[in-house]
Amino acid sequence: MKVLVINCGSSSLKYQLIDMDGEKVLCKGLCERIGMESSMITHEANGHKATTPAIFPTHTEAFAEVVKKMTTGEGKCINDVKEIDAIGHRVVHGGEKFKASCLITDEVINTIRELSPLAPLHNPAGILGIEAARKVFGPDIPMVAVFDTAFHSTMPPKAYMYAIPYEYYEKYGVRRYGFHGTSHKYVAYKAAEYLEEPIERLKLITCHLGNGSSIAAVDQGKVVDTSMGMTPLAGLMMGTRCGDLDPSVVNYLKYTLNITGHQLDEILNKKSGLLGISGVSSDKRDVEEAAAAGNKRAQLASDMLNYQIKKIIGSYIAAMGGVDAIVFTGGIGEHDAIARAKICHHMDWLGIRIDTDKNKHPQGDVCEITAWGAKVRTLVIATDEELMIARDTKEVIEK
Amino acid sequence: MKVLVINCGSSSLKYQLIDMDGEKVLCKGLCERIGMESSMITHEANGHKATTPAIFPTHTEAFAEVVKKMTTGEGKCINDVKEIDAIGHRVVHGGEKFKASCLITDEVINTIRELSPLAPLHNPAGILGIEAARKVFGPDIPMVAVFDTAFHSTMPPKAYMYAIPYEYYEKYGVRRYGFHGTSHKYVAYKAAEYLEEPIERLKLITCHLGNGSSIAAVDQGKVVDTSMGMTPLAGLMMGTRCGDLDPSVVNYLKYTLNITGHQLDEILNKKSGLLGISGVSSDKRDVEEAAAAGNKRAQLASDMLNYQIKKIIGSYIAAMGGVDAIVFTGGIGEHDAIARAKICHHMDWLGIRIDTDKNKHPQGDVCEITAWGAKVRTLVIATDEELMIARDTKEVIEK
Repeated sequence: MKVLVINCGSSSLKYQLIDMDGEKVLCKGLCERIGMESSMITHEANGHKATTPAIFPTHTEAFAEVVKKMTTGEGKCINDVKEIDAIGHRVVHGGEKFKASCLITDEVINTIRELSPLAPLHNPAGILGIEAARKVFGPDIPMVAVFDTAFHSTMPPKAYMYAIPYEYYEKYGVRRYGFHGTSHKYVAYKAAEYLEEPIERLKLITCHLGNGSSIAAVDQGKVVDTSMGMTPLAGLMMGTRCGDLDPSVVNYLKYTLNITGHQLDEILNKKSGLLGISGVSSDKRDVEEAAAAGNKRAQLASDMLNYQIKKIIGSYIAAMGGVDAIVFTGGIGEHDAIARAKICHHMDWLGIRIDTDKNKHPQGDVCEITAWGAKVRTLVIATDEELMIARDTKEVIEK
Repeated sequence: MKVLVINCGSSSLKYQLIDMDGEKVLCKGLCERIGMESSMITHEANGHKATTPAIFPTHTEAFAEVVKKMTTGEGKCINDVKEIDAIGHRVVHGGEKFKASCLITDEVINTIRELSPLAPLHNPAGILGIEAARKVFGPDIPMVAVFDTAFHSTMPPKAYMYAIPYEYYEKYGVRRYGFHGTSHKYVAYKAAEYLEEPIERLKLITCHLGNGSSIAAVDQGKVVDTSMGMTPLAGLMMGTRCGDLDPSVVNYLKYTLNITGHQLDEILNKKSGLLGISGVSSDKRDVEEAAAAGNKRAQLASDMLNYQIKKIIGSYIAAMGGVDAIVFTGGIGEHDAIARAKICHHMDWLGIRIDTDKNKHPQGDVCEITAWGAKVRTLVIATDEELMIARDTKEVIEK
């Protein structure tokens, strides 16, 4: 079975074609600047990668070009589009309606649209991708929606409720949902596999740390808490997102700066986090480089992030009454050895201690960096959201 | 030395006269409904307590009545107002300007006034009290300002900075300050005294849980983190305050409910927390009673609060790399045995375990409820903010 995995932004389309026999990636790529001038596509297959200009007025033209790249020329990996058995779409917000991946129907599309107020940037983009795929691939190809929120749907109310008037939850769905579910799920199962224990017997803390970051407490295979909230703005500070704030700060800034709520949202989403504190960059690598060169605000940004991660790990150990393994994944989680070292420093009380050498150069898709004798195992796992989406898609189709 | 301790709200004046020789309370009381109809004063001294109507157009008349009660009639405890050696004022927000208690001068009053944007309800009330006291007691009596924020001023930047553009900290003072400092300080020192260890050798987590609630991590006598933020709205859910929220929720609610920022502030401060979730009451006792009678939302409110406290304890253990003692204080902390039991349940991994029987009926000002063999000591300590203010006042005066 061949599954095409799609992740659409408002002006982008990321894709990956996976042969589920052997879970082999046949091709992958990215369409950028859809609906703008100088659109382009980067396509990679057969060890060949190329970026070419294109004209993408909408996602439909982008999809058509993806099909062309897959079936012709140097990047060809299938003979006919009919070889694709199913399409798996990443959808950001499933609200309380979608607790698992599901076959896409008109009703499902409508429900995703209804959930747009909770993810005004992401859900409409997901729908664009679904509708464009239908146009290009025809109405008969089975398509599956895989939600970023679904893996977190097992959280108990004490973890997902905000202490505001209860009716706002009932009427407007204001609660913690959590995101990056696909990544948390992938690495949680991968960790269980590595540890050779059924996931039902494990307490895991999965740290997805990248440009967007979140942490999940996974008890017996079920998420019991996670750091992102109703939206992906909450929790840890990120590349440009502020993470948790005193709620009073929102209005205080709005009035002090004399700006609209919308302008403030822009600032909290696009100009805060590592970028806002360091003044240097939203990219952790740039921030660390500046910090190493003596930039104090860059050092502060780095210290703040490490400290916030450390605290959330502590809080989830308390929430679960213990932990068997900590998992680091995502761009920072997989590649930032200094961050891992600082996060795990002085955590012996909680049973966490990592091996300095192993931590410096983790090898392979799963690498254990636990220090000898530590009670808690610490793992670095390369996440693979596309593969997880493809697996979910296959599972739904075969049901 | 006799110290009069004053805690002013916008329409109230709480007072206590303490003889520092033996730290004995000579009298205490409360003036209510200042500036409104049917004002009254409750005065307690010599085992005699009475509430009488009064006319209090401003705090000045209230102060004059307090002097009258202290020097005449059944509640008399001093012969002459001149016996009062100093006045200690509770001031809520000291910003970054005041890192310790200080003698009140015109400049100090101006600075407290300048800090009012950070505590628009509280700081102006504090100034009213200071100015009224000057009028009634004359310009020569030494007065000391004791700040709710001061004990937290030792926090490192990684704990107090929010991940928003750095200039908002520099220009507008947007950062975590923390509150209840006087209470956290009192119980931290009391714990050290009980444990017979210098505070410089201890890691403590002090949980001040009442109508307002906050938790502090006190490492070697210095606060390294605390749960309240720039304002007392942040951190744990409280009687009517929401505590931490996804910052996106603030604007989402404002637009969805179509209300002003000011109206939303009212909701988050006055109609949220235990009250908002339970729909029953802001008082934890009422909430527990309703929960016991089967009210599910009341049970949820109780569960949420216990869970949030548990998580913050875990995060502070991670932050300090361990803990020697957990201290419970405040109305809920001192009197709610069920809450303590639930918070400490299943915390063996972190070294915390309490004795069920000792927890049920803690006796005395300091009561240890640690289970036999637990690594972490757990204490219930009656807080005494007035005494702490009096001690600080004495110390400043005698410098």
